[in-house]
Amino acid sequence: MPVITVNWWQGNDRHARKELVAGITDVVTRVSGCPDDAVTVIVRDVDPDHWGRGGHLADESRSRRGQR
Amino acid sequence: MPVITVNWWQGNDRHARKELVAGITDVVTRVSGCPDDAVTVIVRDVDPDHWGRGGHLADESRSRRGQR
Amino acid sequence: MPVITVNWWQGNDRHARKELVAGITDVVTRVSGCPDDAVTVIVRDVDPDHWGRGGHLADESRSRRGQR
Amino acid sequence: MPVITVNWWQGNDRHARKELVAGITDVVTRVSGCPDDAVTVIVRDVDPDHWGRGGHLADESRSRRGQR
Amino acid sequence: MPVITVNWWQGNDRHARKELVAGITDVVTRVSGCPDDAVTVIVRDVDPDHWGRGGHLADESRSRRGQR
Amino acid sequence: MPVITVNWWQGNDRHARKELVAGITDVVTRVSGCPDDAVTVIVRDVDPDHWGRGGHLADESRSRRGQR
Repeated sequence: MPVITVNWWQGNDRHARKELVAGITDVVTRVSGCPDDAVTVIVRDVDPDHWGRGGHLADESRSRRGQR
Repeated sequence: MPVITVNWWQGNDRHARKELVAGITDVVTRVSGCPDDAVTVIVRDVDPDHWGRGGHLADESRSRRGQR
Repeated sequence: MPVITVNWWQGNDRHARKELVAGITDVVTRVSGCPDDAVTVIVRDVDPDHWGRGGHLADESRSRRGQR
Repeated sequence: MPVITVNWWQGNDRHARKELVAGITDVVTRVSGCPDDAVTVIVRDVDPDHWGRGGHLADESRSRRGQR
Repeated sequence: MPVITVNWWQGNDRHARKELVAGITDVVTRVSGCPDDAVTVIVRDVDPDHWGRGGHLADESRSRRGQR
Repeated sequence: MPVITVNWWQGNDRHARKELVAGITDVVTRVSGCPDDAVTVIVRDVDPDHWGRGGHLADESRSRRGQR
């Protein structure tokens, strides 16, 4: 009955979430042997201005470093 | 000082959240013996299109299976 | 498909966890209308020396204040 | 590689989140010895009407008690 | 900088965790486009007697239903 | 009533946890204006072999790269 929570930056669309859920469920069932129906995935889109990295909000870090 | 987090599908209104918080607090104080004031409940409404079950987004699963 | 996480202090036994799970599941199904089988409850026992309250570890606070 | 999650009431602005992220990262690097870049902070703003305390939604508790 | 948390039942060994981390990281980088190094996966083994399902502790449910 | 969760690698002792809780509580009360007593900090020690980074378990990454 695994429960997986994904925290990532907002900006991913429905297609991306479908692929994410399908892919993670596939990995978890393969590794744990549990059936598909037992896997729950909760996707949380986090605004980069609510995400800190290296002591800064992530939207600042990106503009400073040009990185994702 | 228990902290309880509830992840459920969005669509529940204020009345439902009041009942939820009162009911869970009642159970936790009864079982643990701590006072009401020590119990924190955080309610997260999750959009079914951010919730995966059985490898699919939950809004798809519902339409396919007619279930909640 | 609600997922509930309970963080509380360790020291509760199996009987307490059974009551906790049964009671919370009852509240959640009553409020949300979902079936029993759809409710997941994860119980985390936290050592009071890994729990901070008011700026102190909880086992210190208890001895200082004689409270739970 | 510490990951810190802060759940607090919504109403804090960007300036507050910047200070929060900078301050927590500073504490965690000082205590754990890891570099700044290894620290992730996720900030969740919770609506007081999704936060239960003492068996009531927090926006009710505040009006009843005049407290924060 | 995605952060993924997996809650599953204890009993999976190091080899299973390695496969889990590699597989999930692969899915998340493919879907989100972020580099491998940006993905954090935290694995929590939960004792079935701390996991509630359908109102019962999971180790009871298993013995009653002979299921995983 | 902020609730902060810290996930970090196990190996930090009681003294480190005391400093961590005191420091984070100080930051949160300063930024949010809430009193000390309203701040809860939950510290989770994660075994590096339950922590994935860059697709590998963290204890492997460390030996490969000699980093923390």
